[in-house]
Amino acid sequence: MSSQALTARTLAAIADSQQGINAFLYIDREGAMNAAREADVRRRMGKPLSMFDGLTCAVKDNIDVAGMPTSNGLGYGDTAPLAREDAPVVARLRAAGVIILGKLNMHEVALGATNDNPHWGRCENPLRAGYTPGGSSGGSGAAVAAGLCAFALGTDTMGSVRIPASYCGVAGLKPGREGLTTAGVTRLCRQLDTVGPLARSARDLRELWPILNGTANNQVPPARRTDLGSVRWAVLEDCAGVGVEEGISEAFRDLAKRLPGAGHVPLNFSAIDFSAIRRAGLLLCEAEANVTFSAERQRQPQLFSEQLRGLMQWGAERSAPELVQASDKVQAAGDWLRQQLQNVDFLLTPTAPQTAFPFEQAVPVNQANLTSVANMAGLPAISIPLGDSAEGLPFGLQVIGAVGSEVALLAISVALQEWLAEHDLAVTA
Amino acid sequence: MSSQALTARTLAAIADSQQGINAFLYIDREGAMNAAREADVRRRMGKPLSMFDGLTCAVKDNIDVAGMPTSNGLGYGDTAPLAREDAPVVARLRAAGVIILGKLNMHEVALGATNDNPHWGRCENPLRAGYTPGGSSGGSGAAVAAGLCAFALGTDTMGSVRIPASYCGVAGLKPGREGLTTAGVTRLCRQLDTVGPLARSARDLRELWPILNGTANNQVPPARRTDLGSVRWAVLEDCAGVGVEEGISEAFRDLAKRLPGAGHVPLNFSAIDFSAIRRAGLLLCEAEANVTFSAERQRQPQLFSEQLRGLMQWGAERSAPELVQASDKVQAAGDWLRQQLQNVDFLLTPTAPQTAFPFEQAVPVNQANLTSVANMAGLPAISIPLGDSAEGLPFGLQVIGAVGSEVALLAISVALQEWLAEHDLAVTA
Repeated sequence: MSSQALTARTLAAIADSQQGINAFLYIDREGAMNAAREADVRRRMGKPLSMFDGLTCAVKDNIDVAGMPTSNGLGYGDTAPLAREDAPVVARLRAAGVIILGKLNMHEVALGATNDNPHWGRCENPLRAGYTPGGSSGGSGAAVAAGLCAFALGTDTMGSVRIPASYCGVAGLKPGREGLTTAGVTRLCRQLDTVGPLARSARDLRELWPILNGTANNQVPPARRTDLGSVRWAVLEDCAGVGVEEGISEAFRDLAKRLPGAGHVPLNFSAIDFSAIRRAGLLLCEAEANVTFSAERQRQPQLFSEQLRGLMQWGAERSAPELVQASDKVQAAGDWLRQQLQNVDFLLTPTAPQTAFPFEQAVPVNQANLTSVANMAGLPAISIPLGDSAEGLPFGLQVIGAVGSEVALLAISVALQEWLAEHDLAVTA
Repeated sequence: MSSQALTARTLAAIADSQQGINAFLYIDREGAMNAAREADVRRRMGKPLSMFDGLTCAVKDNIDVAGMPTSNGLGYGDTAPLAREDAPVVARLRAAGVIILGKLNMHEVALGATNDNPHWGRCENPLRAGYTPGGSSGGSGAAVAAGLCAFALGTDTMGSVRIPASYCGVAGLKPGREGLTTAGVTRLCRQLDTVGPLARSARDLRELWPILNGTANNQVPPARRTDLGSVRWAVLEDCAGVGVEEGISEAFRDLAKRLPGAGHVPLNFSAIDFSAIRRAGLLLCEAEANVTFSAERQRQPQLFSEQLRGLMQWGAERSAPELVQASDKVQAAGDWLRQQLQNVDFLLTPTAPQTAFPFEQAVPVNQANLTSVANMAGLPAISIPLGDSAEGLPFGLQVIGAVGSEVALLAISVALQEWLAEHDLAVTA
């Protein structure tokens, strides 16, 4: 199929989906079709820029795409400032021939994990109407799950790529702290922010990685199968202690029992005071939001929801030493997690303690407990689909790797996903 | 000479020097002599632990040495808590057979660069009575310069190893952010703190490096001479703009003119608002001091000078967003400096804008202008002696390298120091 045909069909599907799923905040039909035409010329001449040349991507609305608005999920309507330059990760995709379809719905300024956006409307989970797709990159998870793009970019400060990947049944990668440049990405929390891709499989993420981090040189990286049997795993043992739903715990325990490997070490989060580090991570975001958005908030307070203004106000009223203490707690939790990798290759946990839930339901406080620690540690982490609940809602498996291990993490995740498919575990619980 | 003879002679010299130089806050005569005896046994058996086996070291009093007090330069007298464990850098020295003589004078909590300590008394510059040795690792610079140890450990948050190295005519290394673990070192500012050695020459620092960073495996690293002619330098051109004293500027310009290399690029700090980043760096320290010392300050306020209490109070009264803004400024200055390394191998500047000055003189505000930016960038930087002023006071040359370049930086610094000696530049101005 030509890129033009694919892109036209995708744009039509997006238009149809907006009423229900509401994944897009901005759609660039003309730019996408022009780019698709150019991709088709290259493909006809046998000169594709990469294996993704002519394929489609959509971008979370806190990542700059030249000529498109960057709203950060704030109430700009059609008045959001247009980005002058592509964020480097976007520029690299463009240089690989990727078609940029538009900008995606997100939780307001990425501070929250339901994507119940008060200005742009909820982004719905494509797998269940009225349910959250997770967040803050809810539009990214929903768009990939609904087939509205080949892959999407999101950002992940405490789990914002991996939680929507888990809730929407797709794969999502949060790189390590130095893994991918966050230039051109609106800052939420410098210490924790990362930008990462969501796609239908770990295989897609693995192929995307060298393009995103600028090491591809537009060459297709060699496919690589890793032997699971040689891997030393640390496996979360205390699922109940972190409030993991019973169906997810069962599937995870079943996986741990059957998974090949060169040793399973139990992983236990009892040293972590989740309530304390959650408040600490949140305070870092609240304080920084006062700096990032201070000018805009003074000029146009109506862009910000009352709830967000409240969070920012809370951050503004904290003292500098309180912020230091919060940063210390975040750092200590990260140090602890890195220590857990000393004698193993990867850590395994469920991605989120629950499946997607109705928007009407109270937001579970533990949504990001299992994901945020990887941000605090600066470690790369991936979520791949692990199974489906009795209700038919997906949940993810999180794999956390050592500093700088993105390539190995992606390779092992591909092998894991193949193993899950072969062993019928991807449809349990 | 036996280690026992050397150590005994050094302990006697220390005792003699205390009245004048006052470099030591704590001296462990018995421990040092016992360690020297053991070193002599190893040496007699032809089994030294390293080339430093039996040589002496002294440690700044904010670095833990098991069984010795850690006062941080606060007014503990002989009531300072004893460290239970060696900081890892100290443990590695001990494992290499190094004799730990005691703990060194320092600026109160390392926040200042004169070592005019209100509780323990001034540490004097061994080269000129009544003059500052620099700081905050003033005792470290003075002890090395006066021959009271083979080398010393200091800490460097904005220049606290390199400034005393410059003022005292010795060599000092500040590693990059990930270069040496700061575990067991009292925190002043997490973002900027480093621990590093001072010694009589770059050659000594080069030999120490693999021991300190745990890569030595107790093997002597091979000597290495680097060809200066192949190095691309960026050279500070605007000495007057950063207030460098005329004698230092002249010697530095003379060096730049004659130094071999594969190209000299001008380096210009006009993009840096030194006054703003100085205040920003200071605020990070002031805010963190409230956390690091809060319990002790409540229990024993008299340990803290009135000036330090004032600085801490200032930090306590700042808001969390003000701290974020300070951290942003520090980060931006660091980003800028790292960019200056894009097309060159090393940056060259004078270490400090002035030579040592009398304690009675007002403290120049620009003392750490040329050093602090390397901390903000997380880059390794060294100070080696460049020349002497008309007054006969030494001043240093700062060489800044890329992230992770400590080994190359040390090799080039050895070559530079040899070149300086051969070209009679080390005694100009």
